[in-house]
Amino acid sequence: MGKKKFIAVIGSGQATIEEISLAKSVGQEIARRGAVLVCGGLGGVMEAACQGAVKAGGTTIGILPGDNRQTANPYVQIPIVTGIGQARNVIVVKSAQAVIAVGGSYGTLSEIGHALQNGIPVIGLHAWSLAKNGQFDTSIFPAKDPADAVDIAINLIPDDIEGE
Amino acid sequence: MGKKKFIAVIGSGQATIEEISLAKSVGQEIARRGAVLVCGGLGGVMEAACQGAVKAGGTTIGILPGDNRQTANPYVQIPIVTGIGQARNVIVVKSAQAVIAVGGSYGTLSEIGHALQNGIPVIGLHAWSLAKNGQFDTSIFPAKDPADAVDIAINLIPDDIEGE
Amino acid sequence: MGKKKFIAVIGSGQATIEEISLAKSVGQEIARRGAVLVCGGLGGVMEAACQGAVKAGGTTIGILPGDNRQTANPYVQIPIVTGIGQARNVIVVKSAQAVIAVGGSYGTLSEIGHALQNGIPVIGLHAWSLAKNGQFDTSIFPAKDPADAVDIAINLIPDDIEGE
Amino acid sequence: MGKKKFIAVIGSGQATIEEISLAKSVGQEIARRGAVLVCGGLGGVMEAACQGAVKAGGTTIGILPGDNRQTANPYVQIPIVTGIGQARNVIVVKSAQAVIAVGGSYGTLSEIGHALQNGIPVIGLHAWSLAKNGQFDTSIFPAKDPADAVDIAINLIPDDIEGE
Repeated sequence: MGKKKFIAVIGSGQATIEEISLAKSVGQEIARRGAVLVCGGLGGVMEAACQGAVKAGGTTIGILPGDNRQTANPYVQIPIVTGIGQARNVIVVKSAQAVIAVGGSYGTLSEIGHALQNGIPVIGLHAWSLAKNGQFDTSIFPAKDPADAVDIAINLIPDDIEGE
Repeated sequence: MGKKKFIAVIGSGQATIEEISLAKSVGQEIARRGAVLVCGGLGGVMEAACQGAVKAGGTTIGILPGDNRQTANPYVQIPIVTGIGQARNVIVVKSAQAVIAVGGSYGTLSEIGHALQNGIPVIGLHAWSLAKNGQFDTSIFPAKDPADAVDIAINLIPDDIEGE
Repeated sequence: MGKKKFIAVIGSGQATIEEISLAKSVGQEIARRGAVLVCGGLGGVMEAACQGAVKAGGTTIGILPGDNRQTANPYVQIPIVTGIGQARNVIVVKSAQAVIAVGGSYGTLSEIGHALQNGIPVIGLHAWSLAKNGQFDTSIFPAKDPADAVDIAINLIPDDIEGE
Repeated sequence: MGKKKFIAVIGSGQATIEEISLAKSVGQEIARRGAVLVCGGLGGVMEAACQGAVKAGGTTIGILPGDNRQTANPYVQIPIVTGIGQARNVIVVKSAQAVIAVGGSYGTLSEIGHALQNGIPVIGLHAWSLAKNGQFDTSIFPAKDPADAVDIAINLIPDDIEGE
């Protein structure tokens, strides 16, 4: 697994039907390309992405906010029990080499901020748009669909340092 | 101090001249109203806000990312040494009852996300604008100047639970 | 406050009557010497130490594990709301320049480990004894009473870098 | 992997030759029993345990303190990049259902404290002995060799909730 690419999928625990569908496909595409899926381990977008990945034979890691491994969604294979609450958002993005945001709540917004601060690329599917002083921030790579999002992520992770 | 209101000032460690000026005034206004200033403890907007608060006789808390209390700017009176890096952003906002964002980097964006996720009001001065699915998010209260920003913050913190 | 010495008092949230009495005196002695008291902000030893410090005119900081500032004991003047649970133990010790352990639970043991790992001196009052491979570890300074404990702590913090 | 048992191996990054040998065997025994190894991801005891597990076909998770996945030892298959420094010790133990301590530094002591505070069983091989008020604490299960340590760990993790 040491040579695999790690991609985070972030999004709300209370997702729309469309977001659920997008997240499942993103998880599936990550698994198909042999990458490892990292997420926050709970429901909504996180669960849908894990479900998609597991059905396609992939590996799923859930970085849980609480103290109880039983709070992980049923498709998390490797639960990481942090007990540090919302501060675990930082670990979700730092443990990945690229981040795909599907829709998103304010928690997702915090993860986008943490990723961009660390130079970890963020790809957006129906995600937040950011502007400052009247100018749009173009740091989030827009994707047209799940396969495109995962392609962008895979291509942004250098092969020579993959899974380092 | 138990009855005082706690207000966080967030913004970049590498700030523009205008942001420095705004942050100093914000710190000053916080101190004048008897509130306690919480920040990330480093330079730029954080240092300017602390400087303004100290000159006006206020109290300043710096939640430091690293292991060394000497990294605090010279106007931090109470250094909190976390050693948890960027994850300290969560603590900056949770330790406050309202957050004033001055300009902002991606770290600031993560703090805005964490604050809004926790229902802690955010007031913006030249800060991020957020949109999702083509619609602007109006959760950040816009302020026209530093005094206005602090007035909004003070008014949003209920008196009966202040400083609890 | 920038020139003051910061001393942590650690111990159980469910303390014995003797521990409560010792902790109150420790808090009082810290305040009398003009140092700032840092603790975990909850009940038992933490509350008793804060009570002693406040009655002697001192300053008290409580590094809370949860999300709610109202969980601080009534003698905490500066609540730091971490939301990171038990991981906040690291911040309690790192924010101090010396640590006084009064009695102690397993949480206290974790704090002693974190302090010693960081080269922060630990003074013990009825605290843990440690041994490895049949040899006692003498890293914890034994104190004969609260005043002695605080004297040792104050003397171990260099004046020239105090409160840096 | 959802049905597997997760066991942490903790110990110093600068280990003795004997500790290295013990840790390798512990890792091997964990893998042989089909359990997943969790550790702090760095050198010394952590690296030796991972090496033993990988050679026996096991799975290894390294909860790293820093920001760089390249700091993981070469036998970590799943690096979790926390960036929260020493506070990651809490996550190492919470992510496991039993903890095996091999020798140990003060960091290990903090992990033992965190584990016992959470009711996670700790098995010791040449590890710390604890006493309070002149009485030995018998919470750490003593093991006579690596196979015995892993047997104790496996038996202490209930089958019905294993890997929940």
